Amino acid sequence: MQAGMDTGTAYGRPRPTYRRDLTEVSAGTPMGELLRRYWHPVALSTDAGTIPCRVRALGEDLILFRDGRGRPGLLYPRCAHRGTTLYYAKIEDRGIRCCYHGWLYDVQGHCLEQPCEQGGGPRRDKVRQPWYPLEERYGLVFAYLGPPDKKPLLPRYDCLEELAPGEFVEPDDSSIGSGGPLIAPCNWLQHWENVVDPFHVPVLHGSFSGAQFTALMGIMPKVEFSTTARGVKVESWRELDGGQVHHRITEAVCPTLRVVPNPRVASYQKVESLGWVLPIDDTHYRIYTAGRVTERGGLQEIRSRQGGKRWDELTPQEQRQFPGDYEAQTGQGEITFHSEEHFAASDKGVALLRRFMENQLMVVAAGGDPAGTAFAEADACVRFDAGNYLIESAARSPA
Amino acid sequence: MQAGMDTGTAYGRPRPTYRRDLTEVSAGTPMGELLRRYWHPVALSTDAGTIPCRVRALGEDLILFRDGRGRPGLLYPRCAHRGTTLYYAKIEDRGIRCCYHGWLYDVQGHCLEQPCEQGGGPRRDKVRQPWYPLEERYGLVFAYLGPPDKKPLLPRYDCLEELAPGEFVEPDDSSIGSGGPLIAPCNWLQHWENVVDPFHVPVLHGSFSGAQFTALMGIMPKVEFSTTARGVKVESWRELDGGQVHHRITEAVCPTLRVVPNPRVASYQKVESLGWVLPIDDTHYRIYTAGRVTERGGLQEIRSRQGGKRWDELTPQEQRQFPGDYEAQTGQGEITFHSEEHFAASDKGVALLRRFMENQLMVVAAGGDPAGTAFAEADACVRFDAGNYLIESAARSPA
Amino acid sequence: MQAGMDTGTAYGRPRPTYRRDLTEVSAGTPMGELLRRYWHPVALSTDAGTIPCRVRALGEDLILFRDGRGRPGLLYPRCAHRGTTLYYAKIEDRGIRCCYHGWLYDVQGHCLEQPCEQGGGPRRDKVRQPWYPLEERYGLVFAYLGPPDKKPLLPRYDCLEELAPGEFVEPDDSSIGSGGPLIAPCNWLQHWENVVDPFHVPVLHGSFSGAQFTALMGIMPKVEFSTTARGVKVESWRELDGGQVHHRITEAVCPTLRVVPNPRVASYQKVESLGWVLPIDDTHYRIYTAGRVTERGGLQEIRSRQGGKRWDELTPQEQRQFPGDYEAQTGQGEITFHSEEHFAASDKGVALLRRFMENQLMVVAAGGDPAGTAFAEADACVRFDAGNYLIESAARSPA
Repeated sequence: MQAGMDTGTAYGRPRPTYRRDLTEVSAGTPMGELLRRYWHPVALSTDAGTIPCRVRALGEDLILFRDGRGRPGLLYPRCAHRGTTLYYAKIEDRGIRCCYHGWLYDVQGHCLEQPCEQGGGPRRDKVRQPWYPLEERYGLVFAYLGPPDKKPLLPRYDCLEELAPGEFVEPDDSSIGSGGPLIAPCNWLQHWENVVDPFHVPVLHGSFSGAQFTALMGIMPKVEFSTTARGVKVESWRELDGGQVHHRITEAVCPTLRVVPNPRVASYQKVESLGWVLPIDDTHYRIYTAGRVTERGGLQEIRSRQGGKRWDELTPQEQRQFPGDYEAQTGQGEITFHSEEHFAASDKGVALLRRFMENQLMVVAAGGDPAGTAFAEADACVRFDAGNYLIESAARSPA
Repeated sequence: MQAGMDTGTAYGRPRPTYRRDLTEVSAGTPMGELLRRYWHPVALSTDAGTIPCRVRALGEDLILFRDGRGRPGLLYPRCAHRGTTLYYAKIEDRGIRCCYHGWLYDVQGHCLEQPCEQGGGPRRDKVRQPWYPLEERYGLVFAYLGPPDKKPLLPRYDCLEELAPGEFVEPDDSSIGSGGPLIAPCNWLQHWENVVDPFHVPVLHGSFSGAQFTALMGIMPKVEFSTTARGVKVESWRELDGGQVHHRITEAVCPTLRVVPNPRVASYQKVESLGWVLPIDDTHYRIYTAGRVTERGGLQEIRSRQGGKRWDELTPQEQRQFPGDYEAQTGQGEITFHSEEHFAASDKGVALLRRFMENQLMVVAAGGDPAGTAFAEADACVRFDAGNYLIESAARSPA
Repeated sequence: MQAGMDTGTAYGRPRPTYRRDLTEVSAGTPMGELLRRYWHPVALSTDAGTIPCRVRALGEDLILFRDGRGRPGLLYPRCAHRGTTLYYAKIEDRGIRCCYHGWLYDVQGHCLEQPCEQGGGPRRDKVRQPWYPLEERYGLVFAYLGPPDKKPLLPRYDCLEELAPGEFVEPDDSSIGSGGPLIAPCNWLQHWENVVDPFHVPVLHGSFSGAQFTALMGIMPKVEFSTTARGVKVESWRELDGGQVHHRITEAVCPTLRVVPNPRVASYQKVESLGWVLPIDDTHYRIYTAGRVTERGGLQEIRSRQGGKRWDELTPQEQRQFPGDYEAQTGQGEITFHSEEHFAASDKGVALLRRFMENQLMVVAAGGDPAGTAFAEADACVRFDAGNYLIESAARSPA
């Protein structure tokens, strides 16, 4: 090297790459097949109605509806007859009728009528419109897009089952926790990893933007990371005035759950809500949430604020000036280049989460059932540690 | 299979494919070469004028103009000199002059002047701007984009040649019959097949949307399909009150002709108009029409209506609520996936039309002249059976 | 060939291609590597400030800023930590701080702080944010995106160094000379070649549009082309009334310089300004200019006018009616198809320029230093011949 020559310039840097195994979600990809072993919320229950509704999940376009008997249905959108979209279909008592030649399907894709055929279609039983099973819980419609012989039970969660007097569970589809609009144009993993990244909070949500949540969260915490049976757990301790300690536990749980206590720390209690990071496709995600509230619209109180304003109330200039999760994560690009990362000690949660998911990929590839899939009712209720807790001495805090 | 396991779900369905041989229209593709053996309308005669006009046909971008002597010209848009588009060219008495260095071409692409060269360009004869032959008829500009040694005669059609007193032929470029806007963003074949699909009429244009044409067409017909020398013919019979029978004959004629009697059945007579489904490229088409009328603008009366309104007068919500041909056909996707179709008896017309076109592909591949290409004036007038007819007894109706 | 058969039609023409070696600018391509051996202006000096500024040059996205000590910096935009864009970063006294976890970099990409790490990041020295060297001159920020061991001196230019009393140098980033908006959506070479194409002036800017510059330039000139040590030179002679001759010298200088005397010929003198055609990427360019003026805004007087109006003051219809350089060059397409060109004698300048650049590609491929790169101050000042001159007799004019 010549004396005085520039070092470390951007010239000649290698072409960046990303971890396809961890990010891509289409059918047939490693992560796509892992994610297809779980139920995912794809809509609010109120979205399933008499007008066909477009749904996009895991890279698949689908049509959601609810027949006249109240059963929700999720069908492949192209009519099995000649491929016209069921978006223009009519909902009837027994199912959904294509606009083009009137074939009628029930919520499981059985063809019930072919009105242009003699006798309503003597061979209609040979036709099946591709469909997916649905279940409704917590005000959400959950779909199972995976192999039928591997379909697990739809889990229950303690924090949504054990309600105090006056509490009820409210669903939300507005991507609470994303820090931005309804749909974020980047890979789901960029958001999900953020759940186990407690150190960005005092920087991005503190010194950068002023307190987007609450002053308490602006304190740089002491943190311990650990792997659980279902994902990764983060414990943060913040010493408060008067010797008390704020103990916060956050979990990322397979397949895409955000188990994040209210970052505004409205009260000290078990986690109030769950978020499901739905990969719409490789480069878009949205979040469905269900949580305990005492008033309708209560979940919206969790959202970060900038000078009292929600993200969609900020001007583009303010959004740039006070970046939050949305800016930081979409700012990593459509799919971040993992080849260029430099992890430090504070990234341990992200590292553990990737390792956990790599293990699940191996389990599935080996023919096993991935973490947290339950096939017996006794196993289908999940208990979390997550919450905001107040402890009196610093005894439980690590050195 | 496990007992109680879901069947027929969308999981693991094969990757869909489409018939490239039947749909793709670029030069060098099977269908592209078949279509290039015919004349296609690419503009109204009134479009060819003193301002260069962009034309896109069969995946090719071209420039249309009319020189000062009245000759229409259709040229490759990139000037043979240095590639600047002739869109900015000036039309002169003898031809079209490129804006950049002023090369002048006639309607057959001969280079007449190179004003930046000494003496106007001593070697200008070596240059030829690529061009296509044109003919004008019925108010339309027809272009032949095929091999010069295979150029057929431009056909005449009985229904546009034999006029009653007071009738004249009117051209139209507004995609009458598409049910939508000027240009439809899907493959041309999706529309053309619809011509031989009489059964969608009572469903899509009847029970779904209310009568978009006329109540008569809402009756489910008896139908017979047959292959003709030039395409496929559909005969439909509808029994009317009083023992009369409405006999309707529709034809799809090679290469892309819609021979469709007025679906509003304004009168019982031979087909009033012809439509040419111009493949703009693989994923866009538009329709040129010529028809007998007694008043200017008469062709517009053929269009479907929804509550008296044309498609472009409907709100997007109404367009969704009352789907028509445009929604059904673009709803099949840019190019429908033929691998996913399930044909029934009512699709016989479509099946016959595909088989007919497959045969024409083979004829061309074997070096022959495809159906309906005429090289002698005696052969160049086409007679159709198509029309709306009233017959007194049901005698001709099939059992 | 049949008698009477059409010749020269567009049917069966070969698929067009372009010269990738001469046009593509990304790192690793032949021209990309040649261009990377020179300094390029990428911003005005006033663009480098306390708000990070996006820059795109030679296909690379970068972030420009100026730290609190006044040093400009140009960094790879994705933070070396986890890839978040530095577009949302904060500028501090010592450098730029990422919004996500607060890593701080100086203008040479050294990592100065990792606030989420114990002790500010004991291993932060192992991290380097990719960067590029900058120099400021003539009010412009010049960047060197090439191999560090090949970095030449930033040249000086006589026409910007030797100022008359009252003159000063003004920078401009509005793409003076492009004939259009700030950024032109076509390959840079299409514009640069136009510099050595004097014959288009009386056509495109004269007979086509009326005099866009001045009536003088509407005269078809006598022209001589020659290759210089740094590019190609064009000499044009126009005989004026009274026996005087206007002698105009224009140069295209490696790597992308426009050395074009005022086409409005405001005065007879050495070239007043230099333009750098910055390839933003393969299909976009913009022009930075620096020139001698006596009043602020004086450079804008060079721009072509149509009936007194600048391009952005014309309606789209007027832009079409009076095409200029922008229309002619973007009208060649994103990257013109060189396989379809037909050069004539008047294209000699373009042919020489391509040959000159082909030679430079060979020099670089062979490990040499391309034309005009200087490594000693004595060699780093460039003198041009370019200018508008008035000569009394036609003696110097070629026969």
